Amino acid sequence: MDRDFARLDEFLDEQGLDGYAFHDDGSNSDLYYVTGFDAPDPYFAVYTPEETAVLVSSLEYGRAKQESRADTVKRHADYDYRQKHAEHGEREAEAMMAAEFLADVGCESLAVQERFPVGAADLLREQGVSVEPDEDGVVTDVRATKTDEEVEHVRTAQEANEAAMARAEQLIRGADVGEDGVLRHDGDALTSEFVKQEIEIELLRHGCALDETIVACGRDAADPHDRGSGPLEAGEFVVVDIFPRDKASKYHADMTRTFLVGEPTDTQQEWYDVTHEAMRAALDAVEPGATGEDVNQAVVDVYTDHGFPTVYTDPETETGFIHSTGHGVGLDVHEQPSLSQGGEELRPGHVITIEPGLYDPEVGGVRIEDIVVVTEDGYENLTDYEISLAA
Amino acid sequence: MDRDFARLDEFLDEQGLDGYAFHDDGSNSDLYYVTGFDAPDPYFAVYTPEETAVLVSSLEYGRAKQESRADTVKRHADYDYRQKHAEHGEREAEAMMAAEFLADVGCESLAVQERFPVGAADLLREQGVSVEPDEDGVVTDVRATKTDEEVEHVRTAQEANEAAMARAEQLIRGADVGEDGVLRHDGDALTSEFVKQEIEIELLRHGCALDETIVACGRDAADPHDRGSGPLEAGEFVVVDIFPRDKASKYHADMTRTFLVGEPTDTQQEWYDVTHEAMRAALDAVEPGATGEDVNQAVVDVYTDHGFPTVYTDPETETGFIHSTGHGVGLDVHEQPSLSQGGEELRPGHVITIEPGLYDPEVGGVRIEDIVVVTEDGYENLTDYEISLAA
Repeated sequence: MDRDFARLDEFLDEQGLDGYAFHDDGSNSDLYYVTGFDAPDPYFAVYTPEETAVLVSSLEYGRAKQESRADTVKRHADYDYRQKHAEHGEREAEAMMAAEFLADVGCESLAVQERFPVGAADLLREQGVSVEPDEDGVVTDVRATKTDEEVEHVRTAQEANEAAMARAEQLIRGADVGEDGVLRHDGDALTSEFVKQEIEIELLRHGCALDETIVACGRDAADPHDRGSGPLEAGEFVVVDIFPRDKASKYHADMTRTFLVGEPTDTQQEWYDVTHEAMRAALDAVEPGATGEDVNQAVVDVYTDHGFPTVYTDPETETGFIHSTGHGVGLDVHEQPSLSQGGEELRPGHVITIEPGLYDPEVGGVRIEDIVVVTEDGYENLTDYEISLAA
Repeated sequence: MDRDFARLDEFLDEQGLDGYAFHDDGSNSDLYYVTGFDAPDPYFAVYTPEETAVLVSSLEYGRAKQESRADTVKRHADYDYRQKHAEHGEREAEAMMAAEFLADVGCESLAVQERFPVGAADLLREQGVSVEPDEDGVVTDVRATKTDEEVEHVRTAQEANEAAMARAEQLIRGADVGEDGVLRHDGDALTSEFVKQEIEIELLRHGCALDETIVACGRDAADPHDRGSGPLEAGEFVVVDIFPRDKASKYHADMTRTFLVGEPTDTQQEWYDVTHEAMRAALDAVEPGATGEDVNQAVVDVYTDHGFPTVYTDPETETGFIHSTGHGVGLDVHEQPSLSQGGEELRPGHVITIEPGLYDPEVGGVRIEDIVVVTEDGYENLTDYEISLAA
C-alpha cells in the first residue's frame, strides 16, 4: 500500500478549504508524515491536493531539499525576509512572508491542527487568510493506515524490542532468590531500575531509543501506569512493557510480557491463563470491518465469563480489567485506532496492540501484549515471543 | 536564589492581563517550569500573581496533587465535564469547563505562549476570554535565571557528561592506528557510530538520556551541525559534543572537546591553541552586567587578531568562526541567554556555554566548550575536564 491522502483531500473539499497547514518541528507526527522532514526547529508547511510545500530557514534549506518529500521547498530568502524584517519588524515580516508563501501555493483558506500555534494563526488571520482548527485530526486518521514500508519499520523496531525483552527475561528468570524472596543478580538485589537500564542498553545496541519502560513487580504492577521501582521478588508478577522507537525510521513497537520466578499460586496462574485466553479472543476478532469496540468487547466477554470485573461492566471498579484492549502504534506509540468503547472500524494496514490485563493491589498485575497488523483477511502478528508465566 | 516570577508579574501588569495560560504536555519547558508537573498528555494551566492553577483529567489528578507545585489542582469532574459532554458535545463542553475554571482563578484576559494551540484559543475567545500571544516569551526569560537547586541539577548532568566524555576519549586515544590511518578498536574500525553508542550507554548508567550526540571527524567536523559518521582517522580533528538530559531532574548539561590521535600539524595545533585562547577570553568577559554580545565579541576579537574570518566580521564567510559563542542551558539544551550579536545582559544564575570553534572543510573543525554559571562577581565553571588536543 502507498500513502493515501484521499481522505484528507475529501476533508478539504467538504470543508471548502484550500489546504492543510502546519507550523511545528519534526516531532509533530502529523507534520512529519506529510512532509517527511524532521527539523529541530519549527517550520511552516502546507498540504494541498496539488502539492506539499514547506518554508524553511536557509540553515535547513539544503537538508529540506534532500530529505523531505515536499514538492516545493522555499526558504525565507525567497521572500526577502531580511529586508522585510529590517523595514517592518519581525512579526509583520513573518506575516508578510507567510502570506506570500500561501499565495504561491494558491491557498486563501486553511485547515490546521488544533495544536497549530495561536501566534501564527493570528498573523495569518490578520493577513486575511481563513484558519480553521481541525477538531477531528484528519491527518492522524490518514496515517493510522500504514504502508508496507511503515509496517516494515514497526517490524524492525519490534525485533529490537524482542532482543530487549529477552535480556530482561534472562535477568529475571536467571536471578537467584534470596532468603527474603528478593531476586539477586551478581550478589546484589535485582531491581526494576537495573533491568530497565539493561533493556535500554540492549535497545541502543539495536538502534532504538525509549523515554520510559515498565518493569513493575507486586503492588507496582497493579497500577498499569506505574513504571516500577525497587527490588524484584520471587512469587510475584513482574510486568515488563517495552515501547521503543527506532531512531532511523522513528516508528515504534510495543510488547508486554509478565514473568514470575518460582511457583505461581492457583490465583496467579488463573489470572495469567484467563488473560491469555482474552488475548486469543481479541486476536480472533481482529479483521477489516470489525471495530475496535468489537475487539475490546471480546476481551470484556472473556473476563466477565470468568467472573472478573471490568470498567466496561462496572465503571466504578478499580480492580480487574481497567484499561482498554489496545491502540494504534506508528510514529506515535499511542495513536489511532482505539480498541475500546467507541473504537473505530479496523482497516487493512492498521498496526495495533492487543493487551488485556488484570489488576488488584492484593494480587498484583498481569498483562500480555502483542503487536499486529490488520490485513485484508485478518491480521499478521508482528510479535515472535513466547507467552509463558513461569520458566 | 529562589524562583522569581517578578518579571512575569510585571509583564502581566504592563499588558493589563489577568494571567498567563498554557495548554500543553510536560515537555513544554515553560509550562513545566511554572507548574512542576510533567504529564504525558496536554493539560490546562494558568499562572496569576496570586496562584498557579492546573486543570487535569481524573487519571492525572492524584499525581498532579502530589507532584506539581500548583496551588490549585482541579479535575474535569469538578466541572461536571461528563454531563456537559453528554449535553453539548466535546467542543462546547471543553469551552464551558475552561471558562468556569478561569472564572475560579479570576481570569478574564490571558497572555499565552505563541505556540498555545489555536483550537483552545478559539474556544476561549468564543467564551469572551481575551487571549494575547506573548511574542517575547517572558517565561523563557524568567527561567533563564537558575535557582541554586537548578544549578545543582545541571552540575549532576555535567558529572554524567564528563564520565561519558572520558569513555569517548578512552576509546579514541586508546585506539590502534591501521596502515590506512583509520582508528581500530578490538580489530574493527572505530566508527563515530560506535563511540556515540558507548557515550549513550555511559550516560544511561548515570541516569541521563540524550537524543543526539556529535562525534565528527575530518570533513564532518567542519560542519558544526554534522553529527558525524563512519570510521575515525588519525591525524584529523575529532569533535565530541555531548548534551545529555538528566532523566530525574530534566536539566541538561553540554560540553565539547576536540581530540587528535597522532601528531597534530602546525596548522591544527594553531587552530586548537587560538580556540583555547578565545575560550579563555570569553570566560574572562563573563560577569553580571556584561552582555552576551560582549562575551561573543571577546571571541571574535581573538580570532580576528589571529587572522581568522568570522561571520561577525564577514557575514558571507563559510569558514572560520561561523556560529555564536554560546547559549543558555536548562530544561532546554538551547535556551536564553544568547551569547551572540544582540545577546542580552548576563544575570547571576544564568547557566551558559562558552564554545568557540573554527571550521574549514580543508582542515576540519575544532571546538572547545565548557558550561558555567554566572555568579554575583563573575562565574563558576561547572566543567572539570582537561583541555588537550593530543594525548
